[in-house]
Amino acid sequence: MVRFAVLGCGRIGRMHAQNLARHPSVELVSVFDVLAPVAQEVAGGLGVKAAASVAEVLADTSVEAVLIATPTDTHVPLIIAAAKAGKAVLCEKPIDLDMARVQACWKEIAPLNPTVMIGFNRRFDPSFRAVRDRIVAGEIGTPELVLISSRDPAPPPVSYVKVSGGLFRDMTIHDFDMARYLVGDIVEVQAAGGNLVDPAIREAGDIDTAMVTMRAACGALVHINNSRRSAYGYDQRIEAFGALGMLQAGNRTATTVEASNDRHSGARDVVLNFFIQRYQEAYAAEVEHFVACLREKKQPLAGFAEGVEALRLANAALESLRSGKTVRIAP
Amino acid sequence: MVRFAVLGCGRIGRMHAQNLARHPSVELVSVFDVLAPVAQEVAGGLGVKAAASVAEVLADTSVEAVLIATPTDTHVPLIIAAAKAGKAVLCEKPIDLDMARVQACWKEIAPLNPTVMIGFNRRFDPSFRAVRDRIVAGEIGTPELVLISSRDPAPPPVSYVKVSGGLFRDMTIHDFDMARYLVGDIVEVQAAGGNLVDPAIREAGDIDTAMVTMRAACGALVHINNSRRSAYGYDQRIEAFGALGMLQAGNRTATTVEASNDRHSGARDVVLNFFIQRYQEAYAAEVEHFVACLREKKQPLAGFAEGVEALRLANAALESLRSGKTVRIAP
Amino acid sequence: MVRFAVLGCGRIGRMHAQNLARHPSVELVSVFDVLAPVAQEVAGGLGVKAAASVAEVLADTSVEAVLIATPTDTHVPLIIAAAKAGKAVLCEKPIDLDMARVQACWKEIAPLNPTVMIGFNRRFDPSFRAVRDRIVAGEIGTPELVLISSRDPAPPPVSYVKVSGGLFRDMTIHDFDMARYLVGDIVEVQAAGGNLVDPAIREAGDIDTAMVTMRAACGALVHINNSRRSAYGYDQRIEAFGALGMLQAGNRTATTVEASNDRHSGARDVVLNFFIQRYQEAYAAEVEHFVACLREKKQPLAGFAEGVEALRLANAALESLRSGKTVRIAP
Amino acid sequence: MVRFAVLGCGRIGRMHAQNLARHPSVELVSVFDVLAPVAQEVAGGLGVKAAASVAEVLADTSVEAVLIATPTDTHVPLIIAAAKAGKAVLCEKPIDLDMARVQACWKEIAPLNPTVMIGFNRRFDPSFRAVRDRIVAGEIGTPELVLISSRDPAPPPVSYVKVSGGLFRDMTIHDFDMARYLVGDIVEVQAAGGNLVDPAIREAGDIDTAMVTMRAACGALVHINNSRRSAYGYDQRIEAFGALGMLQAGNRTATTVEASNDRHSGARDVVLNFFIQRYQEAYAAEVEHFVACLREKKQPLAGFAEGVEALRLANAALESLRSGKTVRIAP
Repeated sequence: MVRFAVLGCGRIGRMHAQNLARHPSVELVSVFDVLAPVAQEVAGGLGVKAAASVAEVLADTSVEAVLIATPTDTHVPLIIAAAKAGKAVLCEKPIDLDMARVQACWKEIAPLNPTVMIGFNRRFDPSFRAVRDRIVAGEIGTPELVLISSRDPAPPPVSYVKVSGGLFRDMTIHDFDMARYLVGDIVEVQAAGGNLVDPAIREAGDIDTAMVTMRAACGALVHINNSRRSAYGYDQRIEAFGALGMLQAGNRTATTVEASNDRHSGARDVVLNFFIQRYQEAYAAEVEHFVACLREKKQPLAGFAEGVEALRLANAALESLRSGKTVRIAP
Repeated sequence: MVRFAVLGCGRIGRMHAQNLARHPSVELVSVFDVLAPVAQEVAGGLGVKAAASVAEVLADTSVEAVLIATPTDTHVPLIIAAAKAGKAVLCEKPIDLDMARVQACWKEIAPLNPTVMIGFNRRFDPSFRAVRDRIVAGEIGTPELVLISSRDPAPPPVSYVKVSGGLFRDMTIHDFDMARYLVGDIVEVQAAGGNLVDPAIREAGDIDTAMVTMRAACGALVHINNSRRSAYGYDQRIEAFGALGMLQAGNRTATTVEASNDRHSGARDVVLNFFIQRYQEAYAAEVEHFVACLREKKQPLAGFAEGVEALRLANAALESLRSGKTVRIAP
Repeated sequence: MVRFAVLGCGRIGRMHAQNLARHPSVELVSVFDVLAPVAQEVAGGLGVKAAASVAEVLADTSVEAVLIATPTDTHVPLIIAAAKAGKAVLCEKPIDLDMARVQACWKEIAPLNPTVMIGFNRRFDPSFRAVRDRIVAGEIGTPELVLISSRDPAPPPVSYVKVSGGLFRDMTIHDFDMARYLVGDIVEVQAAGGNLVDPAIREAGDIDTAMVTMRAACGALVHINNSRRSAYGYDQRIEAFGALGMLQAGNRTATTVEASNDRHSGARDVVLNFFIQRYQEAYAAEVEHFVACLREKKQPLAGFAEGVEALRLANAALESLRSGKTVRIAP
Repeated sequence: MVRFAVLGCGRIGRMHAQNLARHPSVELVSVFDVLAPVAQEVAGGLGVKAAASVAEVLADTSVEAVLIATPTDTHVPLIIAAAKAGKAVLCEKPIDLDMARVQACWKEIAPLNPTVMIGFNRRFDPSFRAVRDRIVAGEIGTPELVLISSRDPAPPPVSYVKVSGGLFRDMTIHDFDMARYLVGDIVEVQAAGGNLVDPAIREAGDIDTAMVTMRAACGALVHINNSRRSAYGYDQRIEAFGALGMLQAGNRTATTVEASNDRHSGARDVVLNFFIQRYQEAYAAEVEHFVACLREKKQPLAGFAEGVEALRLANAALESLRSGKTVRIAP
């Protein structure tokens, strides 16, 4: 049994707390939120302690691991504090919006040799993981073309957009990590973006629609497309192509039902709309992997370095968007 | 070049005449219809002769083969006359509605050793043929369960229903032949039917909805389902299952387009609605096969015997429908 | 919180015990098995009591509901004892193999007005439930043709086959219930069966391959096909057709990945192989429904009567198989 | 009847000659090839005249239209000569590899107001045309993201690569035109390319793998990916996404058969491999459209201007590939 505390009881922290509470090899000890009533409500529902402060959580020597699901700007201080307190860390993405702060964070904690995992949950989606495993097994040869379609069902509130770090660091960061998961290191980035969904996003200084092309060190070309809105649900697909063939991972629907009538045939449900539902198995497998890493003293598949590299690609994309030039990633 | 005449210029005769006129190894010589203006119109459009009588067609020594697409009750006398005139025959199904007449027909022409092919066009559909070829190649082992779904887009006029010989001899006869094509001889037949589409069909003494279960000599169980109406188009599917797996042949749509919106995802077009369009490739391949049989002096895949056996199954199904008993087919 | 005990800790009892232990509105109190060490192992893993006897369970006034997952021949006495002890009952199918015992059971417990639910889990599968709900909503009009394909991944041990009551009462019983779930009461049954999978099943006096045709009171024709073996996994599909269109519910695969190479395109995973995995959501929803019925004092969707009617259809199919005749179901 | 001549009897010229010969409203008068025996063979097979020279074809006043299927570097002089001879022209893509020559060509023929159509056959593919028509009809709102996947089954001979003008002008040119067909004018181009298929292509100074991102005047972002090789056949797909939904057009297979076994489920055939087979309906519809334009005195959907614009995008992509910069298209 690994003993956990959860910091942050927003939508995603709450989901993690529930998953941890149900996990057979985890004991959820406590939860914390800056809004004490929220922490108390979540703690009450799960029968665990509502901690009064982060300090209380970190001082609890029975807690081995903390899951950080607080706002992005608190990630770095919490990672540092947790690592110094000897806790393993599972932190939601991104580590931070500022590369200098991210690197300073690592510099400070690296000597402690902590176990830090970043919440790139999509690496644990059964379908995406199968594509990766089958690529690694050589099924399509070296990947040559990779397409990642990633479209949110609906834009976040503009208040969130303003502090999100922008589309590339907030949303595409998952796709940057997915690209690295599938084809390894990236050496070149080109980006294009637009405002087609909501003028308020433009006014907030962000884009809502984007395409990115990247070149991997292995030679593969990678395409990402994003929209902040999708009428038919949360659209999350990948396609990998090589000399020997192609692997495609598609969307999930709530049922397998197909309807035929005088207007169409084979119509399926709209795709699963909500990220918690769409990635339910992925979130569970992510925790499973983290627990296995702790038990077996091995480094997570999505460690601090993966958080750094995904941010680097997001920054490069932003630079390319502004300059209109291909940005090379320093090795 | 094989020289052809077409007898009967209704919807299907017209289609055959056009196919034959375009066929690179066929020369269409003449067409005949009891309605002379119809024959003249078709002949004019294709630049061939409108024969004034069947006798004129059969007396034309340059004609090697006749395609019979006249009403069912004229098939037997025309087959006999054509065979006696030394012509090869491609006759639309069924041979006749009456087994005694069919057997008498064969008795009369057998000594002439004619080439007679029955228009079981579905044997030549690329998808159904592929299923059969892959069964024969052993891909699924011995077939054990076969499902045939066969639903017309809309019922024929009641005037036609009255002379059609009934659903089993008119429509299901194709499915009986398909069953034999896929699993060989049939030894038992059970049938159930209903009137769910149009009360006028019941008044005409026929059913419009049916299910048939059959046992093949090889042990396979075969299911057929029929409806005289299908909202989403002409539904024609087969499924064959054995120890090693399953083969399924589905419907065709005019395009490959799939649509996703806020109501559904992956909706395709309705399926091809019209039998001439759905089986376009099959009709062409059927003629191709007949021409190859003539050239290579071999017997057609769908000969007179196949017409006899399909009728035998239709009659057995009718008997089972009436008696509520399983009908055994004498070997 | 509904307080439960589980009777029987075999494969399916164990699964139910785990589901109940995790269920947010259930408290699992105790488990029992005739093999005490098995009960102790399951109880230990879930942190509940291993009861020493059925009597101990039924005497526990804190227990409101029992889930019966013992061998079939113990169902009737356990249902009676539980009902007399004032417990609600969720009993695995079938109630019993003998109709007289089933009817006697009901006669004995009916005056107690107990809540009894039979484990027809497939009614709670999200896809099958969606087909039913959409039929009820009128999407395809009155159903006219229903096809149920139900093929187990591999045959059970012959020792089980011998006491199973035969294919129709053991396996097809789920499909009989599904037919009633989709189209209501059945009035006629025709059956055909064969031995194509394993000669040992024939020696045990059972069939391993079957097709059934039924007529519903509403007029619909229903087809069921079964095999005790399926190379590509646990094949569970339904199709419902009416004047306005068709609804099809297909198989589930572990991932959405499709592979294309020089031999095929769009190849998906084999279908989920294990019934516990395939019907995971259905088993959870079944318990959810039972709990809701207890809370809201309403009768379950799959009550004792559904168990009776499915057995009646299984018996009718067996009679038809033996007699070769259509069997009418007395209203 | 429109009277045609075909110039060039290579693979594609031969296909066009056959289509024209069979077309009900076309009369194929003559064919020409610099290799007289080739022209004679094709002419003989179709029962038409083998012209001895281009001059002979153009001097034939009975010829109303010429189809130009000669090597690219002869297109411009032949278009000019044909236009001056008063013939309508259907010319295979590209017009020429050099923009200056293309513009000079137009300058010379524009005063003659000729009917010139460029062979962008994919505009006439039923599925791609349906996507375009449904976009125009407003089904997905203004398009925002468009993905074009276009992968040849196998690379052409290096001798061809050397004179092809490079991947963008030879192969991607179809996709550039498709982009314009779907979303209208393009204002920005970014390109990335690689050599992953065949080192000989690199030695010939060309790339064999590419991705292009474009911005349309309407705001849509367009992605194109290309490979000179595809293990599973000729991969030709488009996807268009907007505020109201998504339309996807997929590949065609020879049959509808899906196979399930112990390794996979639902495996379809590899996709149609040969461009003449894949675009059979498109080539026929292209001729149909050209004939309709001549009859109705209207300009073709794919006129000279479309050839100019597709070449402009190809040149911009090449410039972007070399400079690493986004290239703006002058309006």
